Amino acid sequence: MRIVALAGGIGGARFLRGLKDVTGPGDEITVIGNTGDDIHLFGLKVCPDLDTLMYTLGGGIHEEQGWGRADETWSIKGEMKAYGVGPEWFGLGDKDFATHIVRTQMLAAGYPLSAVTEALCERWQPGVRLLPMSDDRVETHVRITDESGTRAVHFQEYWVRLHAAVDAEAIIPVGADTAKPAPGVLEAIAAADVILLPPSNPVVSIGTVLAVPGIRQAVGSAAAPVVGLSPIIGGSPVRGMADKVLQAVGVDTTAEAVALHYGRKGAVRSASNEGGGGRRAGLLDGWLVDTADAASVAAVEAAGIPCRAVPLLMSDPEATAAMARAALDLAEQVRA
Amino acid sequence: MRIVALAGGIGGARFLRGLKDVTGPGDEITVIGNTGDDIHLFGLKVCPDLDTLMYTLGGGIHEEQGWGRADETWSIKGEMKAYGVGPEWFGLGDKDFATHIVRTQMLAAGYPLSAVTEALCERWQPGVRLLPMSDDRVETHVRITDESGTRAVHFQEYWVRLHAAVDAEAIIPVGADTAKPAPGVLEAIAAADVILLPPSNPVVSIGTVLAVPGIRQAVGSAAAPVVGLSPIIGGSPVRGMADKVLQAVGVDTTAEAVALHYGRKGAVRSASNEGGGGRRAGLLDGWLVDTADAASVAAVEAAGIPCRAVPLLMSDPEATAAMARAALDLAEQVRA
Repeated sequence: MRIVALAGGIGGARFLRGLKDVTGPGDEITVIGNTGDDIHLFGLKVCPDLDTLMYTLGGGIHEEQGWGRADETWSIKGEMKAYGVGPEWFGLGDKDFATHIVRTQMLAAGYPLSAVTEALCERWQPGVRLLPMSDDRVETHVRITDESGTRAVHFQEYWVRLHAAVDAEAIIPVGADTAKPAPGVLEAIAAADVILLPPSNPVVSIGTVLAVPGIRQAVGSAAAPVVGLSPIIGGSPVRGMADKVLQAVGVDTTAEAVALHYGRKGAVRSASNEGGGGRRAGLLDGWLVDTADAASVAAVEAAGIPCRAVPLLMSDPEATAAMARAALDLAEQVRA
Repeated sequence: MRIVALAGGIGGARFLRGLKDVTGPGDEITVIGNTGDDIHLFGLKVCPDLDTLMYTLGGGIHEEQGWGRADETWSIKGEMKAYGVGPEWFGLGDKDFATHIVRTQMLAAGYPLSAVTEALCERWQPGVRLLPMSDDRVETHVRITDESGTRAVHFQEYWVRLHAAVDAEAIIPVGADTAKPAPGVLEAIAAADVILLPPSNPVVSIGTVLAVPGIRQAVGSAAAPVVGLSPIIGGSPVRGMADKVLQAVGVDTTAEAVALHYGRKGAVRSASNEGGGGRRAGLLDGWLVDTADAASVAAVEAAGIPCRAVPLLMSDPEATAAMARAALDLAEQVRA
């Protein structure tokens, strides 16, 4: 079976580990990773979501933290402080730095990000084909208003430095409008047997992937069933501060609202204020909500999206594998 | 007193530490550092001699090793090996990497190497004004013949990877012919009260500094006395493999031959095969040899260069300070 998943960082990576547990050697998993979180720090190209996916699936992640490397050292961070070179708010360990140094060197040598990612994965052997959503530079910015006035800050600054403590007024995937899907992205979607939307952030992770022209259309018109998993349980994000960015695009922080935000595959509706204009293709053939949100199943189904309530907390590998199994089961049901 | 010293890495740095010990707050030391050893590794600009000078004088050097940082960690080196990214033969620790990352970022932002060096020294406070010989890229290459045929390799490859085990046929300071002295270099030489040539490598360290058009002429015509210290004791280099590169320029590995290679200030002779053509200004107003080479004093003086035999082993801070004191004393004698 050929499975395609769109994914952000921590949540997506953990879900994909569960997916690997319930698939076999005959299955092929292609992951289309968000690169809107990418940032240039210290002259180096840092791809937080791709690295979290690569480290998690390749066995190098810092498990408790969810990002960065296990058994990390922090010599460079101390040196940067001694040199007075910032930013200090973004944590890059020494081992992590090595990845960014290798990536930056390859990019400077002319390799596109997709080729660089493939080369890095030669080492990590993540067991999936990891593709960046695009080889073109896309950077998610967030419009905020604080004592410095109204301005757009890099997503990482909003998320990591400001901890999303101020309201996000708009999410702007800078560069997305002219970006092209990376080689293999559209082909993988077209050839997929199942397409999954893991419980990643629907706005700044999966939403950014979908903002690359061609990807939303490809998913929305794919022959394969598209099944998503709610990142919202009982009205709160399972992890992170997704409510802040959902609010920015006018979507309530509920499992039902996120389903309607993705939309029913085959439906076309006018775009929200997420950026880009015009009409937008719906995506979902199926949706999973947590058992805590069982009451919303009827409303989602009323919108034409088959929906099931199953446990969606990735509390351990078994629970995560069961979620992946449930997503694949729902895909088979809607296919039939 | 305004003192100018031309310097390479380890030997120059240790000598300068001794010089600081015998000078006071009213004295100004300007160090013109060799950048011919510079190399681009992992996409980063590495300046081994400038860093050795900066770390040694700023209290961050690995004392036993003579290069690199004290209390270093090596996470990145392990990662590079895991990624299969070389070279492996050049040792860069994590803290050292931080310096190269900051330098590379500043260079990419448009600052010349002299400004970057000044910024790095803001942290290290080396107690001297450290100037690169040039802001222009100069890289010393070494012509060798081995089983791969005759070819030129980067000096670092010759020195660090090959351990100078094959003969150096020629020393080629690539780019030196069109390089300009960094801002402040010629001014410092012109304004100096004393100019010192520490016991650095006379070919690939001090020789490279002198290969930048204008520097040799400035030293050779300086009003200040120029005093050098022999890096050769009893027919052998005190440290490193200077004999190999002396041989390449047709100079015997003796304290006397190195003095004659630098030449008597005021004398002009045809250039050796060190690269560059035409006539070359002599430099020395005075020369120090080790007591083991006392027999060569007469020959050096016969060439018109005042010479003294004093202990030249930098075995401890006191011995090194005494060497610096002897050099300054000789400068006063020849001035009078």
